[in-house]
Amino acid sequence: MAAIPIDDPLDPRVAAFRDIRERDLTGRQGLFVAEGEVVLRVLASAASLCRPVAALIAEKRLSALAEALAALPPDTPVYAASQPVLDGIAGFHLHRGILALGEKPAARPLAEVLAGLADDAVVVLACGIGNHDNMGGIFRSAAAFGAGAVLLDDHCCDPFYRKAIRVSVGAVLRTPMATGLNPGDAIDELKAAGFRVLAMTPSSPNPLHIAPRGGRTAIVLGAEGPGLPTHLLERCETIGIPMSGGFDSLNVATAGAIALHHFTRQA
Amino acid sequence: MAAIPIDDPLDPRVAAFRDIRERDLTGRQGLFVAEGEVVLRVLASAASLCRPVAALIAEKRLSALAEALAALPPDTPVYAASQPVLDGIAGFHLHRGILALGEKPAARPLAEVLAGLADDAVVVLACGIGNHDNMGGIFRSAAAFGAGAVLLDDHCCDPFYRKAIRVSVGAVLRTPMATGLNPGDAIDELKAAGFRVLAMTPSSPNPLHIAPRGGRTAIVLGAEGPGLPTHLLERCETIGIPMSGGFDSLNVATAGAIALHHFTRQA
Repeated sequence: MAAIPIDDPLDPRVAAFRDIRERDLTGRQGLFVAEGEVVLRVLASAASLCRPVAALIAEKRLSALAEALAALPPDTPVYAASQPVLDGIAGFHLHRGILALGEKPAARPLAEVLAGLADDAVVVLACGIGNHDNMGGIFRSAAAFGAGAVLLDDHCCDPFYRKAIRVSVGAVLRTPMATGLNPGDAIDELKAAGFRVLAMTPSSPNPLHIAPRGGRTAIVLGAEGPGLPTHLLERCETIGIPMSGGFDSLNVATAGAIALHHFTRQA
Repeated sequence: MAAIPIDDPLDPRVAAFRDIRERDLTGRQGLFVAEGEVVLRVLASAASLCRPVAALIAEKRLSALAEALAALPPDTPVYAASQPVLDGIAGFHLHRGILALGEKPAARPLAEVLAGLADDAVVVLACGIGNHDNMGGIFRSAAAFGAGAVLLDDHCCDPFYRKAIRVSVGAVLRTPMATGLNPGDAIDELKAAGFRVLAMTPSSPNPLHIAPRGGRTAIVLGAEGPGLPTHLLERCETIGIPMSGGFDSLNVATAGAIALHHFTRQA
């Protein structure tokens, strides 16, 4: 694959990569910008659910990335620029030197996502997660433990924001998802599809480590700080992770990972 | 407690809070700067192992923080400034409006830290953790699960860096620790003190969830990416968290939290 040289930060062919710290690209055009070698490899892999649109690479990185770039569809333009031109395009010093533009997958109705899952699938329903580190962490752990899908309510931040993708080490690009859900309706749909719906809350009398395992299971996570609201907790069974006295609760992504480990491990 | 008004960002009484994005304060003078209400409350609490030196608060936050500030030792100066003056001192917009200066605890030899622990203590030995988010996450989970201490080798970043403290929700200030350790020597000392020393590595044939529990237990974590080097793994038993095929490993702080949950839970 021959890289297309870019000498001018204002070259219109790389306009989509310009000033990527500004967030307004994401969502508006159905595209996202991702960065770094790990994420590029996921985007170029068969596991990705997102169409690669273009890549923009520091010249000095091209040879080391040849294999990953060759895995992109043959019609994907790969632009190459010197580090100063690259920094001029991105709007800051891009020390990783690797950017990729991708197309978000088409939105899918929850029922369709659930219909594609196994009889022992474990999914996460995240409600009101506003922090991109936590969002990325939830996706990373979901992928590590083979969760069938991640479901996001209408108060979650965008998982395709650059930092969330990076923290997820690319899991956002390969995990089936449904987004923008009404959380109460989603809980009802999960139940109708045969899922046990287990809401995590520190106040639960049911400790996670003795919770029965097996069958379709949905783990419901709430926002850091307030947690899940009462009207959602009342629709679910609850589970909790007992903690040491006097200390603030676990990080929500960490709590979710501990639950994923419990419900997905073999035997 | 009467707050001391500060009208000039260059007032020498608040010099320690100036330009806190620069890291050179930390370590050099044995002091640290922390931010936010949660961390202030920990620093002022009886659980803190760090001496509060001063606080600098946005005027508009003073009344809501009265209780937390009253918990500080009576000779601790509390400075108050308008938001613009506060921003001028900090060097950026400090939307939380709450800064605290503290003194790191005196360094303690590992043997002394271990001597103070219970017969069923669980500790974390972290090796080569260079990321402040991960460092803070390890401390947060250690506190949530009542770990007896966090031990850091000589290739770890500073846990008293502002972001690590914030991510730890103050756990860095209240967790017994030993730092700057030679990791091989630390493993030998842990064994001599009756600890089972369990190194986490994805390649381990021993799954975490069936690892025996009880007695003094040390969980050894390695750097993201390379993990623990062979010469350390060879000195330890190993445990692993089985993951779904084809995906990158768990985040190190997440893996540590899952292990802490396993080894600290009751029954």
